[in-house]
Amino acid sequence: MNEVQKVGIVGSGLVGTVLAIGLKKMGYEVDVIDRSSDIRMIDFSGRSINLALSTRGWNALDKVGIGDEVREISIPMNKRAIHKIDSSTVEQQYGVHGESICSVSRGGLNQKLVALAEEVGVNFIFDCPIFDIDLKEAVLYTGENEMSSWDAMPYDIVFGADGAYSKIRARMQRQSRFEYSQHYLNIGYKELTIDADEFSKHKLDSNSFHIWPRGNFMLIALPNLDGSFTCTIFMPFEGDISFEAIRTEVDLGVFFETYFKDAAPLIMSLKKDFFTNPTNSLVTTTCYPWVANDKVALIGDAAHAVVPFYGQGLNAGLEDVSELLDLLSKYPKDWATCLEKYQISRKPNADAIAELSDRNFIEMSTLTADPNFLLQKKIEKRFTDLYPNYWLPLYDRVTFSSGSYAEALKLGDFQSSIMEEIMSLDNISEKWDSKEVENMMLRHF
Amino acid sequence: MNEVQKVGIVGSGLVGTVLAIGLKKMGYEVDVIDRSSDIRMIDFSGRSINLALSTRGWNALDKVGIGDEVREISIPMNKRAIHKIDSSTVEQQYGVHGESICSVSRGGLNQKLVALAEEVGVNFIFDCPIFDIDLKEAVLYTGENEMSSWDAMPYDIVFGADGAYSKIRARMQRQSRFEYSQHYLNIGYKELTIDADEFSKHKLDSNSFHIWPRGNFMLIALPNLDGSFTCTIFMPFEGDISFEAIRTEVDLGVFFETYFKDAAPLIMSLKKDFFTNPTNSLVTTTCYPWVANDKVALIGDAAHAVVPFYGQGLNAGLEDVSELLDLLSKYPKDWATCLEKYQISRKPNADAIAELSDRNFIEMSTLTADPNFLLQKKIEKRFTDLYPNYWLPLYDRVTFSSGSYAEALKLGDFQSSIMEEIMSLDNISEKWDSKEVENMMLRHF
Repeated sequence: MNEVQKVGIVGSGLVGTVLAIGLKKMGYEVDVIDRSSDIRMIDFSGRSINLALSTRGWNALDKVGIGDEVREISIPMNKRAIHKIDSSTVEQQYGVHGESICSVSRGGLNQKLVALAEEVGVNFIFDCPIFDIDLKEAVLYTGENEMSSWDAMPYDIVFGADGAYSKIRARMQRQSRFEYSQHYLNIGYKELTIDADEFSKHKLDSNSFHIWPRGNFMLIALPNLDGSFTCTIFMPFEGDISFEAIRTEVDLGVFFETYFKDAAPLIMSLKKDFFTNPTNSLVTTTCYPWVANDKVALIGDAAHAVVPFYGQGLNAGLEDVSELLDLLSKYPKDWATCLEKYQISRKPNADAIAELSDRNFIEMSTLTADPNFLLQKKIEKRFTDLYPNYWLPLYDRVTFSSGSYAEALKLGDFQSSIMEEIMSLDNISEKWDSKEVENMMLRHF
Repeated sequence: MNEVQKVGIVGSGLVGTVLAIGLKKMGYEVDVIDRSSDIRMIDFSGRSINLALSTRGWNALDKVGIGDEVREISIPMNKRAIHKIDSSTVEQQYGVHGESICSVSRGGLNQKLVALAEEVGVNFIFDCPIFDIDLKEAVLYTGENEMSSWDAMPYDIVFGADGAYSKIRARMQRQSRFEYSQHYLNIGYKELTIDADEFSKHKLDSNSFHIWPRGNFMLIALPNLDGSFTCTIFMPFEGDISFEAIRTEVDLGVFFETYFKDAAPLIMSLKKDFFTNPTNSLVTTTCYPWVANDKVALIGDAAHAVVPFYGQGLNAGLEDVSELLDLLSKYPKDWATCLEKYQISRKPNADAIAELSDRNFIEMSTLTADPNFLLQKKIEKRFTDLYPNYWLPLYDRVTFSSGSYAEALKLGDFQSSIMEEIMSLDNISEKWDSKEVENMMLRHF
């Protein structure tokens, strides 16, 4: 076994930089290669797609010693603020123990992570597109453009942390017996913005995840440090109510007045944003194996891109990093063992969070507006308070625990079957906190 | 709409060359580009993976006017010869009306098709790897090697007929909202050969498809014109009985003596073939859309690679060609309409034959050895003879009709549900040809 000295990480995104920090602190020489320019040279004005960091993400950030730096640029959200179509609002606590998820700007976080990685000695190579990889030898190929001559960049180990459209995975896909799928939702999304008020304050409660659930479409808003909110509208590409159907400023005005009456006046640049910003698509990718020849491995979205409806995409990627670093501590320098155990351990969890994320669009866009859904949450909360060892709601298990996603999915399905029975009881809305209901639930344990 | 003059077809395989002949005969200028050398320069000795041509394949070959030339090099097989583990044999007619499928050598057929295409004026460009394609402009990029400079080859329309590992599809896969999956069986295959006897005659009946079904593995043999048979062994890659488990010549000898006692002495070069020939994998790919920008389209395995257990991979690809040529006759020169209608019409059928092919491994490797399976076939045959308008067995509908695969799958499931009921009757083996059974089946129509 040759001593691993030099690790190449393709992709300077969130997962790539956190992995780089972790490996550098373990003593490896680490290059991070990215086809784009240094993100610190780009002005984000604190606005870009927002993320919701939760327990799994924080675990990884704390493990590599940068949790506190990231906490400084994040805003805790302890509840959903559900904006109904009549402009009234219902609040719903996220965690049964008052926990929060944290809003953080993707661009701002990425800038900070690159700076922190550079501080500990990670070497960044920007503006360096990767055209191909030799999977046997862990050699990357780059150059001016794909059609001109290529240069070789040899490493001992290479990670593909290059996201949902990973070049490294594309190369692995050409191997025999490589399982792969990519599936797009017929729902797209578009970014909009609620600016800060004249005092640079938030126009809506800043510690809430705001959501306007409307069935098969919805609007959400997450707070930024500068007083603004980043909004995202999710909607079908085609159909009666769809991106395609909104063709004129009049269409847009009528649509927002009808469905998002309270939000419309807050989005000052609605018309410009809507017709200028791109409509993005949502992909789920699955693949296996994640490792080739004990030398090349996929991590984060490159291995398992999921739709954003559970707010777990980044958290799942950072949990990959945690798992890998734990294995490297347990089997020092035995990369073959670590990479094999890494993929075996992570794959079922990646599949589980993909499934949970897919399902959660329905919950977010439909159920959060349903009185029965809110009642069910109350019943679950009550049972959790009474029997914390028997019941942790699925959302809490996914978001505020470190138990495996695969286990969460399994227990979630078990809980669903119980709650289906409970919610179908006559007069459940009157006797929801009765001993009878409690006993019915207890029977299953 | 610009006039389409020049069509580029990537891939000089079976589907690409038949498409080329059809388009050339319609008056288009056609280039066929292939990364490999001219297959006519390669000596196959009449041996390579064999194909079973059936109705859909013949329809396309006759449509482009080359059916008779291909019939000359094919051998009709009107039955399965099922070799049991005790070396006894059971025969099973393929078609309820005595139809045959036709064994033809892939290499020999391909050589003939290239020659026929050249005769009608198709231009072949061999040894020309395609590294990329501009999907908007239908420009192909080639060159000495991928790492050196590339040359542009502009066309009006480009077809990707470049098989299961299509480069054209790989480029399309990078488009947003492109659905794609590749799935490998854990079963691999390996080619073996039964040589002709000293008089250049076949050592087994030459008008049979020979099969040694053994549960989760099997051996098959298809006749060649030179008196030999091309054999294929299908077996799990790993496990108790697997390619991995046969490590030595002794292992191999014991294995063949145990499971293929009658075939073993016929395969003269068994040891050499087994340990020299590669173990190949079996992939199913699905994708959509098949067409980009009204200019680039996938066809054959590039659009829908299936496992070989229904013998329909090539037939399905040639049916793509039939459909496309029919559309071009109906909407002359309106390529946008033709390509759109082509993909809408073919996609559900491609999905159906993928499903049917996947299911048929069980039928071939397990059920053909099962007395109940043979009894069921007899009952179906009897009912077809009595009520030909009510019942055509699934195999016949797939293999000997031109009805859509999607319809075949649907009717097949309907028939299965009926046969499940019939086969579960007490004493069915005694009363299988009774009026009672007949009436039970009639009730469903």
